[in-house]
Amino acid sequence: MATHHFTPTHYFNTIGSHPPVLHIAPGDTVITTTVDARGADASGQPITPRGNPMTGPFYVEGAEPGDTLIVYLDRLTPNRPTGWSRKVVAANVVDPEYVPGMPWPADESQALATWAINNAAGTATLIDPEDTRLGRLQLPLAPMVGCFGVAPAGGQAISTATSGPHGGNMDYRGFVAGVTVYFPVFVEGALFHIGDGHALQGDGEIVGTGIEISFDVQFTVDLRKGQRCFWPRGENNDYIFTVGNARPLDQATQHATTEMLRWLQEGYGLDPVGAHILMGQTVEYDLGNIYDPAYTMVCKIPKRVLP
Amino acid sequence: MATHHFTPTHYFNTIGSHPPVLHIAPGDTVITTTVDARGADASGQPITPRGNPMTGPFYVEGAEPGDTLIVYLDRLTPNRPTGWSRKVVAANVVDPEYVPGMPWPADESQALATWAINNAAGTATLIDPEDTRLGRLQLPLAPMVGCFGVAPAGGQAISTATSGPHGGNMDYRGFVAGVTVYFPVFVEGALFHIGDGHALQGDGEIVGTGIEISFDVQFTVDLRKGQRCFWPRGENNDYIFTVGNARPLDQATQHATTEMLRWLQEGYGLDPVGAHILMGQTVEYDLGNIYDPAYTMVCKIPKRVLP
Amino acid sequence: MATHHFTPTHYFNTIGSHPPVLHIAPGDTVITTTVDARGADASGQPITPRGNPMTGPFYVEGAEPGDTLIVYLDRLTPNRPTGWSRKVVAANVVDPEYVPGMPWPADESQALATWAINNAAGTATLIDPEDTRLGRLQLPLAPMVGCFGVAPAGGQAISTATSGPHGGNMDYRGFVAGVTVYFPVFVEGALFHIGDGHALQGDGEIVGTGIEISFDVQFTVDLRKGQRCFWPRGENNDYIFTVGNARPLDQATQHATTEMLRWLQEGYGLDPVGAHILMGQTVEYDLGNIYDPAYTMVCKIPKRVLP
Amino acid sequence: MATHHFTPTHYFNTIGSHPPVLHIAPGDTVITTTVDARGADASGQPITPRGNPMTGPFYVEGAEPGDTLIVYLDRLTPNRPTGWSRKVVAANVVDPEYVPGMPWPADESQALATWAINNAAGTATLIDPEDTRLGRLQLPLAPMVGCFGVAPAGGQAISTATSGPHGGNMDYRGFVAGVTVYFPVFVEGALFHIGDGHALQGDGEIVGTGIEISFDVQFTVDLRKGQRCFWPRGENNDYIFTVGNARPLDQATQHATTEMLRWLQEGYGLDPVGAHILMGQTVEYDLGNIYDPAYTMVCKIPKRVLP
Repeated sequence: MATHHFTPTHYFNTIGSHPPVLHIAPGDTVITTTVDARGADASGQPITPRGNPMTGPFYVEGAEPGDTLIVYLDRLTPNRPTGWSRKVVAANVVDPEYVPGMPWPADESQALATWAINNAAGTATLIDPEDTRLGRLQLPLAPMVGCFGVAPAGGQAISTATSGPHGGNMDYRGFVAGVTVYFPVFVEGALFHIGDGHALQGDGEIVGTGIEISFDVQFTVDLRKGQRCFWPRGENNDYIFTVGNARPLDQATQHATTEMLRWLQEGYGLDPVGAHILMGQTVEYDLGNIYDPAYTMVCKIPKRVLP
Repeated sequence: MATHHFTPTHYFNTIGSHPPVLHIAPGDTVITTTVDARGADASGQPITPRGNPMTGPFYVEGAEPGDTLIVYLDRLTPNRPTGWSRKVVAANVVDPEYVPGMPWPADESQALATWAINNAAGTATLIDPEDTRLGRLQLPLAPMVGCFGVAPAGGQAISTATSGPHGGNMDYRGFVAGVTVYFPVFVEGALFHIGDGHALQGDGEIVGTGIEISFDVQFTVDLRKGQRCFWPRGENNDYIFTVGNARPLDQATQHATTEMLRWLQEGYGLDPVGAHILMGQTVEYDLGNIYDPAYTMVCKIPKRVLP
Repeated sequence: MATHHFTPTHYFNTIGSHPPVLHIAPGDTVITTTVDARGADASGQPITPRGNPMTGPFYVEGAEPGDTLIVYLDRLTPNRPTGWSRKVVAANVVDPEYVPGMPWPADESQALATWAINNAAGTATLIDPEDTRLGRLQLPLAPMVGCFGVAPAGGQAISTATSGPHGGNMDYRGFVAGVTVYFPVFVEGALFHIGDGHALQGDGEIVGTGIEISFDVQFTVDLRKGQRCFWPRGENNDYIFTVGNARPLDQATQHATTEMLRWLQEGYGLDPVGAHILMGQTVEYDLGNIYDPAYTMVCKIPKRVLP
Repeated sequence: MATHHFTPTHYFNTIGSHPPVLHIAPGDTVITTTVDARGADASGQPITPRGNPMTGPFYVEGAEPGDTLIVYLDRLTPNRPTGWSRKVVAANVVDPEYVPGMPWPADESQALATWAINNAAGTATLIDPEDTRLGRLQLPLAPMVGCFGVAPAGGQAISTATSGPHGGNMDYRGFVAGVTVYFPVFVEGALFHIGDGHALQGDGEIVGTGIEISFDVQFTVDLRKGQRCFWPRGENNDYIFTVGNARPLDQATQHATTEMLRWLQEGYGLDPVGAHILMGQTVEYDLGNIYDPAYTMVCKIPKRVLP
């Protein structure tokens, strides 16, 4: 039950079987930091190439293929005073014939908005551009982790732009502090990676970003030996949930729904017909992201209806 | 501001330019009933062929193409003691390779579950099958209308199995009493149809039904002359929302998102960049249905962030 | 075996249970004309509202729900000297982020290209615009029918913009003279409609049109009593084929593939495993259209491998 | 212009920046072998783990990111007397509700068919199962390469189950001997991989395999320095073509179409409007695969209409 204070020295832009930066045991806690999607740290300066650079991987002692890695998201805190977002809804999220008339930025220097982050007040405030009718729009902070997961099977190294059964760039705003996440273990040590913090984000990450920012992060790991899951799962106070990552959304929904049917039967002892009837009338879905190469759909069942 | 008590004598299984059953004026209220998806009324007996039979159409005086029809859902109350649902998640909502192992009913007589409906207690209780581990699962009532809308353009008569810009079989569990809905008007009189009540439903209508039941219904209509919308819109106490109906979900999402961008600019005076920035960080999506020929995705903006 | 010379006096923009314009018997031949997608006839002048106006419907004596209507496309001949096409690939057919940079016309008056049609030479020649590097591009005529089919079930009237199990706006360039087409019969008399001729078209109808033109048409009908199909089917000298109409293409492909599996087993006596093995190694697919509300995918099996 | 005879000693199940097995120069020819999808070589015995094991990678001297690698497929010849295919159409290629009734094998040992391969006669003959109505179905050989490509960008190692801008498991039956293929270069040396030969295959690889077999392979490489492409391209005697890899098919089609629009303008000097008009009326599409995690659509333009 050790607590590790870990200061990253390098980052990865893929999730894969990279040399671990730290070995930890089930029950251990890690306190560390993450850079933002463009590789900028708490100073606001880029220190590593852009594209969701990952802190880690962390090698979890005893984790073997077929196990489930448990990650408790203990703390996710923006650690600098400003974050940024893109300004325009991504072209793939609107009707194709509506795209030509949208307010495309003249160039990349015009593409970003800047937000002031105030942890004490719990607010994000739009400070640039100044000339919209939103004025200094203030929104409540809701810090979440955009990209995290474990090394995939078969020697793959998967870009942190996308996601899959191993997790990755799911950009689901339900991944907040207090949530427990379950990942399938594909390689020895699981090799957990984490990064891409958002001060807050709308459903779908439809402008292609949340409010992107570096984080102070604390997480605790554990293992379920010999218990297999096929897709990331999670739970919070009110729900258990499963995560499907794929395109189109239809397929992401299929993955998440199937994983929940398995969980209700294997994890909660429901008979098949009972699981299906329960799902039919109580399921809820959240849209994780509809921007990344793989979209993310989340299938939720309220804990109050579980056996 | 008349109140009409209307007793249906026949029903339609398409939404189209059928002869109106009643002429009403903007501001008028209608108190009527709907049969369930299989055509059974408050007696529980089928009185008209199955397939979401519609009450109506109601001709709204003064409604012309290019206007917006406003429908206030005043009251939606199940009017008999039992409802039914299908038991098994639809094959299109799970991974294709998971389909063969699912608990398919031997025949149609085994396909349905029965629920006791108690309006006073506000509950739906599973009474058949009796042999699942759910036992007598009790869920809170949340009555909603599955299929409603206006006659489409160009002389089309669209099956009540599906949906489109005219509304139709959207099966969105947000269409509850207290909600205001906006439909584009395509023909003189708008020709409003309503039916397919659900005592409650999970997101996505993934077993192909909610708890299907006949309803006592009360609604009030109004007009926005010369104000055009392209897709159904709505609002409740907390949100404004837009509805996209299409397959795949990606396209339903595109329709709803585009319609919200239009609404924020035309209806709330936001500049284009402001509308996009606001959407990006505050949008929420609900999955209406992922079962019908056209899927339904709902795009929501919290009223608290609107100008 | 009568031959009917039919001169249309009015047209429909939906396919539905409209009053028939002519009663014909199985074995009869009809010689008639169709207007182009904008309602212009052999004179080049619009005579009816745009949107794929249909000639018909033709009532086929003895046709009942559950039968199959056979349509022999005997002759499809452009009957005026010029046709038109749209100039720019539709926004939904290219990468969303590529859309803003495309050569969108300033207005609708700039949207169309004009082609000279020479039946004797068998050519279509680009005559406007004159300033592209294509010059007077000359392509071989390959006349095909874009939209045809039978009245759908349940009193639906379906826009000629789209397609379904009843046929409709499939825009498949394999529907040329010499082809036999099979449609499911949903209503008494089948009610066959035909229109929307193209002098030629690329796969997918990706600019939203072929070379649109009015036609002289000759077709012959027949019936297969009591033999049911679920989707349009066809055959030419070399192939049998099935047609799936839906979005996305994935679902259109599923419909067409499933219909072919049924046909191989019910029509050609293959056992299930044999049908699947044969499909796996000999199937070919054609893309009908990827522009209309429902896309069209065609599943083909070479006649030389059939039992 | 050297010719290298290369005998593989190990194989990779991802396409990535693996240590090269051979350095070759532009203009060089390689004569080598590939194992089948399950890792069996010319002896029919598995010699490496299954999952499309790749021969290579081959380091092409001088290749740098931003170049285009040219691969001439000189010879693709099955090198053993039998190949195998799966028997049943994949669940994702048929209507979901049709899946439960399909002839699923009792277990994996029942899942495969065996085919005798005769290079001299140019035939593949079904020899097991023996009890279908196909009997000893004989089909013409049409050897093609299922999976080949170059190391992707950013340190990714992508499973040979799937495909992307780097190529990979495209399973397009147009990749036969005599075809020239173009790949974007993402890393120094390009790192070309090749494997997964099929004696023949239907469109779409709908049973999840072609007739899988080990190959004798000969290919020749060249470079286009400083000429960039975004997706694989190719040409044969009659067509130039571009390849899009993604799900759903709609997106694969978007990628391929966009790449062809670029090629027509940058490679053939067409003005934008000319490129669009030409595409609209002359484009053809082939379905590569509709089974793998990423589907493959091929966009073709006949050489006879090119400037």
